Amino acid sequence: MISTKISKRMGCITSFHVMDVMARAKTLEVSGRDIVHMEVGEPDFATAQPVIDEGIRFLRSGNVHYTKAQGLPQLREKIAQNYQQSYGVEVSPERIFITPGASGALSVALASLLDVGDEVLIADPGYPCNSNQIALFGGKVKAVNVTQHSNYQLSAKGVDDAWAESVKGVVIASPSNPTGTVIARDQLAELMGVVADKQGFLISDEIYHGLVYDGRATSALEISRDVFIANSFSKFYGMTGWRLGWLVVPDAAVDAANRLMQNLYIAAPTHSQYAALAAFNEDTQQILNARREEFQRRRDVLYAGLSDLGFVLGKKPEGAFYIYADGSSFTDDSYAFAIALLEKQGVAITPGIDFGSNGAKQHVRFAYTTSLERIELGLQRIKVFLES
Amino acid sequence: MISTKISKRMGCITSFHVMDVMARAKTLEVSGRDIVHMEVGEPDFATAQPVIDEGIRFLRSGNVHYTKAQGLPQLREKIAQNYQQSYGVEVSPERIFITPGASGALSVALASLLDVGDEVLIADPGYPCNSNQIALFGGKVKAVNVTQHSNYQLSAKGVDDAWAESVKGVVIASPSNPTGTVIARDQLAELMGVVADKQGFLISDEIYHGLVYDGRATSALEISRDVFIANSFSKFYGMTGWRLGWLVVPDAAVDAANRLMQNLYIAAPTHSQYAALAAFNEDTQQILNARREEFQRRRDVLYAGLSDLGFVLGKKPEGAFYIYADGSSFTDDSYAFAIALLEKQGVAITPGIDFGSNGAKQHVRFAYTTSLERIELGLQRIKVFLES
Repeated sequence: MISTKISKRMGCITSFHVMDVMARAKTLEVSGRDIVHMEVGEPDFATAQPVIDEGIRFLRSGNVHYTKAQGLPQLREKIAQNYQQSYGVEVSPERIFITPGASGALSVALASLLDVGDEVLIADPGYPCNSNQIALFGGKVKAVNVTQHSNYQLSAKGVDDAWAESVKGVVIASPSNPTGTVIARDQLAELMGVVADKQGFLISDEIYHGLVYDGRATSALEISRDVFIANSFSKFYGMTGWRLGWLVVPDAAVDAANRLMQNLYIAAPTHSQYAALAAFNEDTQQILNARREEFQRRRDVLYAGLSDLGFVLGKKPEGAFYIYADGSSFTDDSYAFAIALLEKQGVAITPGIDFGSNGAKQHVRFAYTTSLERIELGLQRIKVFLES
Repeated sequence: MISTKISKRMGCITSFHVMDVMARAKTLEVSGRDIVHMEVGEPDFATAQPVIDEGIRFLRSGNVHYTKAQGLPQLREKIAQNYQQSYGVEVSPERIFITPGASGALSVALASLLDVGDEVLIADPGYPCNSNQIALFGGKVKAVNVTQHSNYQLSAKGVDDAWAESVKGVVIASPSNPTGTVIARDQLAELMGVVADKQGFLISDEIYHGLVYDGRATSALEISRDVFIANSFSKFYGMTGWRLGWLVVPDAAVDAANRLMQNLYIAAPTHSQYAALAAFNEDTQQILNARREEFQRRRDVLYAGLSDLGFVLGKKPEGAFYIYADGSSFTDDSYAFAIALLEKQGVAITPGIDFGSNGAKQHVRFAYTTSLERIELGLQRIKVFLES
């Protein structure tokens, strides 16, 4: 028989329990139930009109051929300008690669850096695709527990303590998914100092940059040129389904990244790249900034509401659109808790077990990717659920 | 210092020499030279209007959110219907995954199947991304030489002879890039019989299906359910820049493929998926069939012309849009030959060394992805070049 045997590698690749929640929510909705969606890691807004218009203008040309593997030069130029304007950092467009989402950026960075058996430090809780991609490219995840007390971010000491000869680098994420917390500039510089001492690599997941409500997040590029930065048009720019992100690499990695783009993707979607040219326009930025303010209002209402209900929260998360809540007064089985909340009260959330194992059974993630009215309704329903 | 050391893995990932040819062609064009492009592996036609229209209609909704990881159910349904209508094969939409190009399909198949050190048989010459992706996912390429005499396709005997304990499977491609040849149904069945005897896996690259000029190509799905099929909207459907393909997997691999889609891509581009719904419409198919006829006319002119010029050709290739020509009367350095032809006569072609090492220095690939007039002009220029 022709073999259909799945690789051992796949034994390390987790699926997401939230998929069960979403599937069950869908079934309930089909049967007529109203579901408040607080599980979705995607802005609820439609793509900003100027971006849509630019996409349509480009499609009218009919000329949807491949771009070069590295991506449209004019889009890389705009991203470089944005680093100059928003961060005061000089980044040559030659170091910028347009990727199929930040997922693609992470793959290119990891394949450039990892050999089989290399260990990589990441925060637990953290975004599961980051760990899974490390495993897919032959690396090993070495999770470092982070808590409310460390603002859910890796520290210099944490990295120093966890280092070993087998560790080759670190993946950080600020703002973080699932916690929304931002690593402070001092803390980042100190952490990068340790990575430099150890001669490790650094991949910085900055896909929620732009969605920061108190000041702005620091890019690792402000501290060193020798870092890999994954960023995205999905979150602040609201272009999830367009599948477009970017990767900044050190000079030494430009050639490897080009080869990887060619072989893994050929190139990012052409129409998305042209549409994204409008993402940096002033009219688009006005729309996106108004949406950020709306996210901030939602965060404030949700944070206060969850706190009132008895969830133990860290300090108010500075970015992204998530609140990671310690529900240990209510459950030590976050999956069962999420399913019960959905079944009984029609509120969908993500169980902590999707983000690691550190307190994961006592935590749940709430996304504020739905309207204020729905968030308030969700809070009322959660109250009823907790009191029942 | 923070490390920017590139992985050892990247030592196995080749870049494409044709990139040098294309970069030099671009420079010459900027300086005012006219270049005949016969190096490009992409149809020159604009996307068919009904697909463009569907894409624009979808973008107008503004609702460009993620689809589920496996892809739009209605698109998977249409692909399933197409297998029924065009091949007489029943394929459940549950086994079909919409991927970011066939590149994505190949990655998902390889990551599902390969563990570190596994060997995979492929034809030399063959498409370089296939070999490179095998290496990226930790496998080892075991190249099997194919020639004009075997129609540049793997045979049952070739596979049997090359098998070893370390070999876990085979990647075939029909029609093939760079040769355009199609594996005959009998030969495919016999080859798959050997793979089944060895209990190996089979990945069938069918991205040029639809672009076959004499009859149609057989899908490996017609012979077994236990195969992985990579296909694409890029070639016959003319949607290169949209970055959309699909993967058919055996039942046993559905779960792994879902996890890989989530972790590597989240999903394929949403607007591309909606636009592709129009790819199977009758008006689109009429346009695509007319283009196929145009490709066929080009093939016939190019084949006759190259033969007249003294290139040694196998039998006329049945599909894709390439002719792979033995130029050993003219060169034993296909790269230098391609560069000289470009510099002296302004014709861009792809050197054989991009496709392996088997006779690669004596072969070049001509793509008929430009108009008949340009092909004829190219042939005249090559004549002058060869006579000078």
